[in-house]
Parts: sequence; C-alpha cells; structure tokens
Amino acid sequence: MRTMPQGVAKSTMLAVVGDSASGKTTLTRGLARVLGEEQVTHVPSDDYHRYDRAQRKVMAITPLNPSANYLDILERDLETLATQRAVLKPTYRHTDGTLGPPEYLQPGPYTVVDGLLCLQTEGLRRLFDCAVYLDPPEEIRRSWKLLRDTTRRGYTTDEVLNEMDRRDRDSARWVRPQRAFSDIVITFRPGARPEDKNLDAEILLRPTLPHPDLTGLAGEGASDLTITSLPHGEQLLSVPGTLPAGRAQAIEEAIWDRLHFARHLQLDRLGQFTRGVELFRSDALAITQLLVLYQLVTARATRALDVAGAPLRGPERS
Amino acid sequence: MRTMPQGVAKSTMLAVVGDSASGKTTLTRGLARVLGEEQVTHVPSDDYHRYDRAQRKVMAITPLNPSANYLDILERDLETLATQRAVLKPTYRHTDGTLGPPEYLQPGPYTVVDGLLCLQTEGLRRLFDCAVYLDPPEEIRRSWKLLRDTTRRGYTTDEVLNEMDRRDRDSARWVRPQRAFSDIVITFRPGARPEDKNLDAEILLRPTLPHPDLTGLAGEGASDLTITSLPHGEQLLSVPGTLPAGRAQAIEEAIWDRLHFARHLQLDRLGQFTRGVELFRSDALAITQLLVLYQLVTARATRALDVAGAPLRGPERS
Repeated sequence: MRTMPQGVAKSTMLAVVGDSASGKTTLTRGLARVLGEEQVTHVPSDDYHRYDRAQRKVMAITPLNPSANYLDILERDLETLATQRAVLKPTYRHTDGTLGPPEYLQPGPYTVVDGLLCLQTEGLRRLFDCAVYLDPPEEIRRSWKLLRDTTRRGYTTDEVLNEMDRRDRDSARWVRPQRAFSDIVITFRPGARPEDKNLDAEILLRPTLPHPDLTGLAGEGASDLTITSLPHGEQLLSVPGTLPAGRAQAIEEAIWDRLHFARHLQLDRLGQFTRGVELFRSDALAITQLLVLYQLVTARATRALDVAGAPLRGPERS
Repeated sequence: MRTMPQGVAKSTMLAVVGDSASGKTTLTRGLARVLGEEQVTHVPSDDYHRYDRAQRKVMAITPLNPSANYLDILERDLETLATQRAVLKPTYRHTDGTLGPPEYLQPGPYTVVDGLLCLQTEGLRRLFDCAVYLDPPEEIRRSWKLLRDTTRRGYTTDEVLNEMDRRDRDSARWVRPQRAFSDIVITFRPGARPEDKNLDAEILLRPTLPHPDLTGLAGEGASDLTITSLPHGEQLLSVPGTLPAGRAQAIEEAIWDRLHFARHLQLDRLGQFTRGVELFRSDALAITQLLVLYQLVTARATRALDVAGAPLRGPERS
C-alpha cells in the first residue's frame, strides 16, 4: 500500500457519469495527470458489465440497463478502495466486447470512477466526495461516439448507429436521471458561429458542495466568462471557446489561489484532449477540470483536518 | 438471496485444507449432497491464483506459495459471503491453467472453502466455524495426483512428476504447517494387508471444537472402531476399511442421534467417491464426513440459538 499523509485514512472519491462517449475519459485523464497517475486509482464502471457483447446481443439488453451490471459488487469494491484496501476488479475489453480475467487494483489517495451508472443506487451515491455529470448535446455525443467506436472499439458505422438507437430508451430511463444526483453538470457545445472551432463549456455548480466564488471574475459579452445565478442556489458558468488566453489564465489563477495549499500541483497539463489521434488544448476544458480538481483537493484537505485535528500542512512542508 | 431461517444472519463456514490431490473434493462433495447443493456456496481457493500456469512456469513459482495467490481478496470475499452478500469470485481453469472471467457467487447458509492455503493467515483462520486438514500418506497422495492430473487436468505423467518434486519444498513450508490450525485432521491410508481394498480412515479430533462422544461405540481388534485418547485432549478415531457394514451403520446412527434436530438431512449419500471414472462407496469416508457435518450443523444450530435467543426448532417443526 502506498504511503499516505498521516491521519488520512480514506481515499477521496470522484464519480464522473454520463452516456457513452460523453467525454468522461477526457475529463478524468487530465485530473489524473495533475494529481499524479500513481496517486489515482481509476475504476471504469464498464468493467462491471455482467454480460459480454455477444450475450447482450442474444438477450437484446444494453449495458445501460442496471441489471446488465454487477452494481452490488461495484459498490462493495468502491467501499473497499475508499478504506484503502485493494480489490480484484473485473475487466471488460472494449476492443472486442469480452470479459477478461480480473485485475488487482491497489488503493490510492484518490479514486476516480467513471461510467454509465456510477450514481445509480443510493449505496453508490453516498460513497462519493464529488459527483460530476457530463451532459453534451445529443448530436455532439453521437458524433464523438461514432468516431471513437469505429476507430477504437471495432464496430462498423452501421453497428454504432443501430446500437445508439437501441440505447436511447435505456439512456433516458437509467443514465440521464443521474444528472439530478450530481454536484457539477458539464456541457460542452459548439460555439454560436460556424468559425468558432473551440467548444464552449457550460458548468452548472450545485450548492450540494461549496464551490469557489468566481463572481468577481465574470466579464461581459459572448467571449468572456459569464456567471448566472439560478434558483435553488445553483450557478451556471459559461466559458466560451473564444475566451482570450489572458482571461483564461486569470480565471485559472484565481481558482489556484483558492487551492494555495495544493499549489505544488499546478502544472500546465489541464485542458488537453484528443480527437481521433490528434492532441488539442482547450481553456474551457482546463477551467472545467480545475473546478472538479478544487473539489477533490478540498475534500481531501478537509478530511485531513477532521482526522488529524491539526492545521493542514502542504506536502512540501511536512 | 435465498430464504434463511429467521434470525440466522451468518453463513456457516467450513475450511478443507490439504495439498494437491489430498482428497478435498471427495470430502466436500458428499457434504454438499447431504446439505443440499443449493444450500452450499462452494469456494475453491485455487480460483484466487494470482498467476496462470504459463506465468508460474516463467517465474519458477508454485501455486503453493502464498504470494502466488490473492489471499487478501479471498479473505475479503469470505467475510462477504459469511455475512450473506454475493461476491464476484475470480476463476482458475484447471483444465488448461488459465485465469478466466470472474463468476458471481450467491451467498448460502453454508460456505465450503477448499484449497491449498485456506488457513494460511490469521484473518482467514478466524473466519471458519470448522477447519479440516487432509493428511494422506505422501505416496497415496502422489498416486491420486498422478491419476487426476493426467486424466482431468491436461498434464503428461512427466510433467506431474517434475511438478511434484518442485512443489515438495513449498508444501513443507506453506501447506503442511496449516495442520496445526485445524479442528479435525483426516488421514486415509491403505489397510495393513494387501487384500484390504478399502482405505482405513484415521480421524484426529482436536478439543478446539466439541465433538460427539463415541467412546461407548469403540470396539476391539483391527476390524472395528478404536478410539485413542492423546495428550492435550485430542482423540484419535481409527475406522478400518474392513469395518463390518453393521458396525458402520451403528456408528453412523449414533452420530445422527446427536444431530436429532437435523434428522431430515439423513440420506444415504455419504461415503461416495470416484477413482478415475468409477464410483465407489466407503463406510470410513461416510463416518468421516458425518463427523464434519456434525460440526457444521451444530455451529449453525448454536448460532441460531444465539441470534434468535429462543429454543431451537428443527425445520420440520418451524
């Protein structure tokens, strides 16, 4: 087991939920890079599929159906990782849709769980320090899914399109309702004008967690950060893809200021994403990731204080 | 989950430990038949092998080495089954020595765990209501192993013989010391005369559990049950393979008398075993199985009393 900061006995748990190809991996990969790959235990909940691709075809069931997943085992394994003990995680091979031998997974200070149904049950929901729902417009998600599944998961275009139609009902029934149980809802969408090549980010912050107050940083106009107060204490942050680089940097700095005790994490590795095999960077993605990172680091620091009953010391001073 | 007798929340746990081909399956199969296959959750601890056969060959490690097994996960899974929750058990395919996808295992009133290392750790040992060690003479075990591994596990004779030599040191180091942690030690050995075709059973009963008192049933001579008191409260029962059928029946009856509340289990299905593909019956095996069954049924009944705080009622009267 890895060395843990003294007094911190529990792994900090993040759920990233959304339909297939909604951008879960893009979001979490950047977080793992910043926190340190060796600090993060990654649990793709797709690994808990009960049936392989061939069985699902025969049964006419999609992996979005909770009964097609071992959600009870997922919950147990996450409880185990949360208390810093190893698990033997099942595996699902996306490349050919078969179930493989399980993998031994070491616990880590951070546990990042992404998948279709991570917030499906009350038992799962109570495990997470922060829950994120990815909510791209359906036409964007479909184009992402088509690209990925035909290039990396061995499906033909026809198969992906047919599968998406079959999944639609199950997504409405099982995946989308989980939006209600998330602390942060993220939507990436194309800019208003055809020439805007970077996606806009809309970030809904729910009062279920304390978020950094960025109202002093809001600007005006279509190319700046805007913050809208919504009923029930919700805030909507709009980060346009056309945000000037200097403004993006100022916003990121402001969030880092509020994470002063975790300043050693600040490296320029947020905001990266791939499209096909090309690597890009997006300020809107970086700011989105930083708002999630804020929750993880804060939850961990708060728990360290609770457990240790002493003022927090950053790793560089301990 | 299966319906449980009211107030009984915990599965009754049996460990059957012994070297490869020491007769573990022969012992447990009869118990499962008597208790009812659907009442027994069977966990072969070989399924928790960390490496497949090819990996072990490269690493020059035998499966008898604790580090070649996920004993931490085995312990966790048994704790989970003990409290009547399902697990996703890994699988090891003896036919070709590969690791397979995991299997979903429902909890049951009885959990029977057999394998090489079930009593290896303190954490494992404290889980069991009864622990049995199988201790056949080495030359008998080798002949059993040779027969089984060449007929059912895809090894050549040469491979089995080489493997056994390699295993010997590990067996002495890791498997045999577990004898000390068992409540019952069972040795099947050939009779004294070449014409005795049935094996004798020697059953060492340790005072770590209350065993049925059979001293009144002991006879005299080489063809009857003899009971020897040993130091430290241990008793050695010798059941010769030449025991007359009438005597065997009287002894079995006497044990069943002490299990009067479980009389509904009494069926003539104990004592069966296979050699190659042939089916045989042995009174010595039946009596041995009955002494183990006694522990399981008694542990369960005692716990039912503890939990329910009410007089025990047999299932036929509840």
